[in-house]
Amino acid sequence: MNFKGRDIVSIKDLTEDEILHILDVADGMIPIARGEEKSDLLKGKIMASLFFEPSTRTRLSFEAAMKRLGGNVIGFAQPGATSMQKGESLADTIRTAESYCDVIVMRHPQEGSARMAAEFASVPIINGGDGAGHHPTQCLLDLFTIREEKGSIGENKVALVGDLKYGRTVHSLAYALALFKAEMVFIAPEQLQMPPEVVEECKAMGAPISFETDLEEATGDVDVIYVTRIQKERFPDPEEYNKVVGIYEINSRILGKGKKDVIVMHPLPRVYEIAPEVDGTKYAAYFRQAFNGVPVRMALLSLVLGGIE
Amino acid sequence: MNFKGRDIVSIKDLTEDEILHILDVADGMIPIARGEEKSDLLKGKIMASLFFEPSTRTRLSFEAAMKRLGGNVIGFAQPGATSMQKGESLADTIRTAESYCDVIVMRHPQEGSARMAAEFASVPIINGGDGAGHHPTQCLLDLFTIREEKGSIGENKVALVGDLKYGRTVHSLAYALALFKAEMVFIAPEQLQMPPEVVEECKAMGAPISFETDLEEATGDVDVIYVTRIQKERFPDPEEYNKVVGIYEINSRILGKGKKDVIVMHPLPRVYEIAPEVDGTKYAAYFRQAFNGVPVRMALLSLVLGGIE
Amino acid sequence: MNFKGRDIVSIKDLTEDEILHILDVADGMIPIARGEEKSDLLKGKIMASLFFEPSTRTRLSFEAAMKRLGGNVIGFAQPGATSMQKGESLADTIRTAESYCDVIVMRHPQEGSARMAAEFASVPIINGGDGAGHHPTQCLLDLFTIREEKGSIGENKVALVGDLKYGRTVHSLAYALALFKAEMVFIAPEQLQMPPEVVEECKAMGAPISFETDLEEATGDVDVIYVTRIQKERFPDPEEYNKVVGIYEINSRILGKGKKDVIVMHPLPRVYEIAPEVDGTKYAAYFRQAFNGVPVRMALLSLVLGGIE
Repeated sequence: MNFKGRDIVSIKDLTEDEILHILDVADGMIPIARGEEKSDLLKGKIMASLFFEPSTRTRLSFEAAMKRLGGNVIGFAQPGATSMQKGESLADTIRTAESYCDVIVMRHPQEGSARMAAEFASVPIINGGDGAGHHPTQCLLDLFTIREEKGSIGENKVALVGDLKYGRTVHSLAYALALFKAEMVFIAPEQLQMPPEVVEECKAMGAPISFETDLEEATGDVDVIYVTRIQKERFPDPEEYNKVVGIYEINSRILGKGKKDVIVMHPLPRVYEIAPEVDGTKYAAYFRQAFNGVPVRMALLSLVLGGIE
Repeated sequence: MNFKGRDIVSIKDLTEDEILHILDVADGMIPIARGEEKSDLLKGKIMASLFFEPSTRTRLSFEAAMKRLGGNVIGFAQPGATSMQKGESLADTIRTAESYCDVIVMRHPQEGSARMAAEFASVPIINGGDGAGHHPTQCLLDLFTIREEKGSIGENKVALVGDLKYGRTVHSLAYALALFKAEMVFIAPEQLQMPPEVVEECKAMGAPISFETDLEEATGDVDVIYVTRIQKERFPDPEEYNKVVGIYEINSRILGKGKKDVIVMHPLPRVYEIAPEVDGTKYAAYFRQAFNGVPVRMALLSLVLGGIE
Repeated sequence: MNFKGRDIVSIKDLTEDEILHILDVADGMIPIARGEEKSDLLKGKIMASLFFEPSTRTRLSFEAAMKRLGGNVIGFAQPGATSMQKGESLADTIRTAESYCDVIVMRHPQEGSARMAAEFASVPIINGGDGAGHHPTQCLLDLFTIREEKGSIGENKVALVGDLKYGRTVHSLAYALALFKAEMVFIAPEQLQMPPEVVEECKAMGAPISFETDLEEATGDVDVIYVTRIQKERFPDPEEYNKVVGIYEINSRILGKGKKDVIVMHPLPRVYEIAPEVDGTKYAAYFRQAFNGVPVRMALLSLVLGGIE
């Protein structure tokens, strides 16, 4: 398997075997990600971190990943710190930036921008989120978390909860879970259910899928509850929003009715979706999930830079 | 004395002996802080530099401190470069950030925020200033500067000059000087004098204290003049401000009437408090004081990360 | 030749021999700049990157240069991330920042600011652009590119095209080319021609100079076409701007009529000055020119920090 020089734009660019290889490499990175072991694997290498849109988690964990491996980072955290406003095209910005680095991690508000950048750049592009498009490293860290916590990906029943219509995270994750033949239940208010094209694609891959609107009923037999933030601005009527927020809150009562070893995941940031009382329980996997962004991104950086095969 | 894993939220968290130990370690860091010696003491470690409020001095000197010791830095210099606006709680931001690093340095506009962060985080939190609250590393570098310049802390008469009411820096410093039994004179316009609770606390610790409004008269016999910025917005009447600014300017004439070896300190930035003519004189300790932020912060980082005992 | 501790404020601070030495050192840096070789030449050193005005290219390539050599970077990418708004003077900011680092790279909107900073600082100041003033590292990378691409500097006929009146880049470059006795042709609309004082200075140095308004006619026999951006706001009448933009576009047709080995350079960012069809041709030297900023800045940093003689 050769990842050297490859772009990582969408989870769909990766086969099942390639995903498993990335997760295996990530697994070996854990002691370095925790700061328990030192590494100079990427010493002398430079990652350009180009965030055309602010981000805390993705940017900081990518930068931590590069630095834990002895590598360096240059870049910007928001477009205001650049001269982009002079009217330069994204293609020119990428072709310039790539002459200063060995790999580019980019987040951009425009869907398709990462794919375009990959066409122009000769260094590998890793997509850190392109608007409503893709966010493959989030998807990989989600899969990694499920495997770390439950032992496998495919042998679980996974509930995807919340805004399934607009969240790019759940679209990619549904695809990836279908690839591993996991059973899925999509729990959302009707106006925020999973788009038909995503459902069709998952079904075509042979994944068992069901739909629910009632959170409590639907989570009783699942192994993983993956929650996403419901945004107020999706609802024309604030009353409607308030109702949904109340109904879709994960709390101790609901978890108490589920499987003993069910885990709760969330891409974060969360607002009202998970009650704070859950934080200290065995169910709460979301902060471990945030940490997992580091070893997974270490694996990707090492693979595309040729530090590891 | 074991600092490993400890939070540094307030100068009051430290005993006299602990403070002296930090200053001793800082003393040994000077050649590395100056770039004359190299160090890999904190190699592989990551400091998260979370500045929810802009800062030049504190942030840059912390980052220099970490890098002089071979360590790495991730973080943000202003909240605009983060996704904090999505409504995430500070507790969640801290719990996420800590999974990417070994120590967190934070500045936040809200008093008490550093203490709260320390309760949630398992990595050490170093408070880089929390609004009107604490700024312990400024206090430590002030003490370090007095000891470096004058040989001891307690055997000096120290004048604290300027806005003693609102300046968090002088409140912590008065406490710390009292701990070392230094004599203090508080020189301020009446409306900006030291708050009674700070005065009471210092007196209870046995420190000799006096009050003055006339700068020239009061600085004749002091060893250290510690000046702070008087902010225009504290005065309802601009006339009042202008009068005070003129009266409380440290210049060559005033210094000429004082002790031959008196030194002038200032946490910086200064505006009109010290005449530029002082810059080139032996009295001016304020740029050396700014430098001292580096070895003191190197000492703290090394201690809480276990690089040094 | 001793560069250690020197400020680099203007290209005029350097003799012909000194420039050639910098370019020779830069030449040796190429494998490290490309990431093909590792270096610890500046390990333990800190560069402060003080950008009082946003920049992508200059800042990122300086930071890449420092990091490729094993050095560290602290700083800010825009004044909003600092406490400058508290009214601190530039002199104080510089005197504070220099106590945290070994070299300062600064960009500032005010002409003359870098010279002033150099007077106050004891560490070397490298000017990364001071408003309408100087930008010596851009000039050095332009000279480096011409020498790399054409084998020498002086034995070329160079066309400077576009806004020759307001562009600081072309003023410095014209001076430097005159120093090497290169032949120059200044191609610009009348209202944007090279200022008389620059022309006089170049002539006094013995450089052959001619003036043109017609791009196509004037580029037929040149070796290098150096294009700069024409800014809309320079024209009171938008019609005038549109006409000029059309006339001064470098495209395949124009290049086809020129010398077979003519190269096109541009300091970037470009907007409409060069047709995208040129990008893939042998003529296009502008992305290689952007890359050359890295080895040239590596050379300067190594020289002023004493890493190389």
